[in-house]
Amino acid sequence: MERVAIIGVGQSEFGELWDSGFREIVLKAGIDAIEDAGLEGKEIEAIYIGNMSGGRYLAQEHIAALIADYSGLAELGVPATRVEAADASGGLALRQAYLSVASGVHDIVIAAGAEKVTDVGSEMTTDIMASSADREWEGFVGATIPALYALMARKHFEMYGTTPEDLARVSVKNHKNGALNPKAQFKREITVEDVLNSPKVAEPLRLLDCAPLSDGAAAVILANEKIAREYTDNLVFIKSCTQASDYLALHSRRDITTMEAVRKAASLAYKMAEVSSQNIDVVEIHDSFTIAEIMAYEDLGFVEKGKGAELIREGITELDGSLPVNPSGGLKACGHAIGATGIRQAVEITSQLRGEAGKRQVDCETGLSLNIGGTGATAVVTIYGVV
Amino acid sequence: MERVAIIGVGQSEFGELWDSGFREIVLKAGIDAIEDAGLEGKEIEAIYIGNMSGGRYLAQEHIAALIADYSGLAELGVPATRVEAADASGGLALRQAYLSVASGVHDIVIAAGAEKVTDVGSEMTTDIMASSADREWEGFVGATIPALYALMARKHFEMYGTTPEDLARVSVKNHKNGALNPKAQFKREITVEDVLNSPKVAEPLRLLDCAPLSDGAAAVILANEKIAREYTDNLVFIKSCTQASDYLALHSRRDITTMEAVRKAASLAYKMAEVSSQNIDVVEIHDSFTIAEIMAYEDLGFVEKGKGAELIREGITELDGSLPVNPSGGLKACGHAIGATGIRQAVEITSQLRGEAGKRQVDCETGLSLNIGGTGATAVVTIYGVV
Repeated sequence: MERVAIIGVGQSEFGELWDSGFREIVLKAGIDAIEDAGLEGKEIEAIYIGNMSGGRYLAQEHIAALIADYSGLAELGVPATRVEAADASGGLALRQAYLSVASGVHDIVIAAGAEKVTDVGSEMTTDIMASSADREWEGFVGATIPALYALMARKHFEMYGTTPEDLARVSVKNHKNGALNPKAQFKREITVEDVLNSPKVAEPLRLLDCAPLSDGAAAVILANEKIAREYTDNLVFIKSCTQASDYLALHSRRDITTMEAVRKAASLAYKMAEVSSQNIDVVEIHDSFTIAEIMAYEDLGFVEKGKGAELIREGITELDGSLPVNPSGGLKACGHAIGATGIRQAVEITSQLRGEAGKRQVDCETGLSLNIGGTGATAVVTIYGVV
Repeated sequence: MERVAIIGVGQSEFGELWDSGFREIVLKAGIDAIEDAGLEGKEIEAIYIGNMSGGRYLAQEHIAALIADYSGLAELGVPATRVEAADASGGLALRQAYLSVASGVHDIVIAAGAEKVTDVGSEMTTDIMASSADREWEGFVGATIPALYALMARKHFEMYGTTPEDLARVSVKNHKNGALNPKAQFKREITVEDVLNSPKVAEPLRLLDCAPLSDGAAAVILANEKIAREYTDNLVFIKSCTQASDYLALHSRRDITTMEAVRKAASLAYKMAEVSSQNIDVVEIHDSFTIAEIMAYEDLGFVEKGKGAELIREGITELDGSLPVNPSGGLKACGHAIGATGIRQAVEITSQLRGEAGKRQVDCETGLSLNIGGTGATAVVTIYGVV
C-alpha cells in the first residue's frame, strides 16, 4: 500500500448560509482545497463526495455528478462517486478516497462532504435525520435521533453515574474552542448553567447538548507520498482509515452505552497505524450530542468503559489538557453539516498537525478523528501523523 | 492489481413486488449470491450497495448499515458503503467492490443494488427520478427524465434519420428476450405496432419506449483469482470496470446525441481489458428509453455515430444476431429497479458467460455492461471474460 498524504484542505463557513446555494458552498470548499494544495484542478483523478440526503434537502440526487459538472471536472470525465452513511457520509468519502490512493488506483483525488439543510423546515429536518436510524423499528413509532441518544444518556447515567453536569461540560468546552475558530457556527462561550437551563429536547438532553444542523462543505486533497512531496514539505499522512458497522436499531445492540462500531473501527485503526490510544495528541469526535463525546472517550480507548465523564471533569480534553478533543469546537460549536462533518474533522486535524490552527493550536504530532452515522451503525476512525 | 472474479450471483424478481419489503428483496438477492458462491456469509469482508433514493422511496437513508444489520454482517462489524449516482448506483457499487478486490484491500466482497419504488405514487416517482438530472436547470422548469430523453431522440432523428420504428424495434427485441427470462418483469412479446400505438409519454417516446420503474435487488460476490479458484472452476473475470462523468444538464453538452461519459468510460474499459469493441460477444445496455440503446450502440463503438439504428434494423443485436444486446430483456422488459440495475446487468452477463442463461443463452466468451445515471452524467462500463 502507498502512503497517503493530505496536501490541501478547504472549508466553507458552517451555519445558516441563506445567501449561498449548495453549489456555491461545495465549490468554495473545493477551490480552497485545490488552492491550498497548489494544484490545477485537472490533476484530480477522482472525486468522492459525502452527502446524506440531497434527495430530500434539495430534491437532487446524483450529487457527485452535479459537483463534477460545476467544478469543471465533468469536461474531463473525472469519475465522481457519492457515498452515504447518514452523518458518517464524509468519513466514507475520506475512506474511499484514501483507499483509492493507498491501493495505487489513483495518485491525486479529492474527498469532499457537503450538506445544505436550511432550505427545508425543522419538522422535515427532524424526519430526514430520523432516516439515519431504523425507520421501520424506530422512526415510524416516533423515535427521533435526539430521543435515541437520550436513551443512551439515561442508561449511561444509570450504569456509570454520569450526570447532566458532565454532559454540559462537554458543550461548554466545545463552545469555548469554537469561539477561537473563524469558521465555526457558534463563536461564543456558554456556561454549565446555560446548558442546564436550556430547553429540554429529549430528557436528559437539552438544547445545548445537541449539535445544530448546519449548511456547510469541506474538502481535502489526497495524494500518494511521492506526488505529495512535489507539492509541500508540510505533510500530514493518513496512517489508517477504518470503517465498521453495528446494528441499525438500538434494541438489537447488547449494550446501548457502547458503540461497537466505534470500538471495532478504532481497534483496527490503531493496529494499522501502529499506534495506541495513548499516542494520540489531538482528537476530533462526532459530538452530535454531548453524551456521544463521553461514550467515544471510552469506545476509542482513552479511558475505560464508564469513566468517560472523568476526562471532562478533570479538564483532560480541554484545549490545554493532555488530550485536547474537538479543538475546532466540534459538531456542537463548529456546526454539523451532516455529510460534510467527516471531512471537516480531517480539515481540522490537518490544520492542527501542520501548526496552522491559530488561536486553537495544540501541541501535536498524531491525531484522530471519529465520524459516526446516525446512532452509531456506522463509524469511521482516521489516524493522522506528521511522519 | 489482482485479477477479480465473480463467484456468486443472485437476483430477486423484478416488478411490482407488493408482498415484499425492501429488506426481504435485498436479502433474497444477497442470500442467493452467497449460496451460489458456496460461501459462508462471515467470509465477506465488505459490502457495497447501490441505491438511488431510499431517502425518498422509503424515508430511509443509511441503507448500507440497514443491510449489514439485516444480513447479520453488522455483528461482525463488516464495513457497509452505499454509493449513489442515480440509476448508475449499482454500477458504482460494482466498481467500488471491484477496485477494493483488484487493489488487494479485500479478498471477498459483496456488491449489491436494490430499490423499492412502488410504495410511493407515480407523481412522486416522476419527481424522484427527475432528481437524477439537474434540479435547478431542468427539474424546476418541468423537464422530466422522459422529456430529456425525448430531446435526445428528436435530435437523433433530425441528424441521423433514426425513426420511431427503429425505437420500437429495440423495445420489441427486448420484450422478446424478456419472455425467455424467468426473473423478468414483462415476460410477453410485443409488436412494432404495439409500441407505435402505445400512449405518448414525451414525443417521440411512447409508453412502450420507456422502461418501467421496478422493485428489485441483485447481488454479486467478487473475489480475487486465488480465492475464487477455491470456490469454482467456472470463473467469470471482471477484466475492467470504469466510470466517467459528463455535464449534468443537457444544455451544457456539445451534442446531446452523444453521451461523452459512455464514450470515455468505454474507451478506458477497452484499453484496460485489452479488447476492442469488436471482441465483445454479449452486451447488457442501459435501455431506460429505447433511444438510449441506439445511442449506446454508437457510443460504445459498435457502429459509427449516427448509424445505431442499422444494428437493430438488420437484426444484429437480436438474440441470434452477431452481437446480442440485452438478452435479459434489458431495463425495458427485465425491469429497471434503479439502484439494482447495474448489478442485475452483471448477474446476466455472468450467467451468459457461465453458460447458465437457459433459453436466452448466447454463444459468448467476452461480455460488456453499460450502466447509465440519469441522462448520462455518469456512465459505468464493465468488461467480463471467461479467461
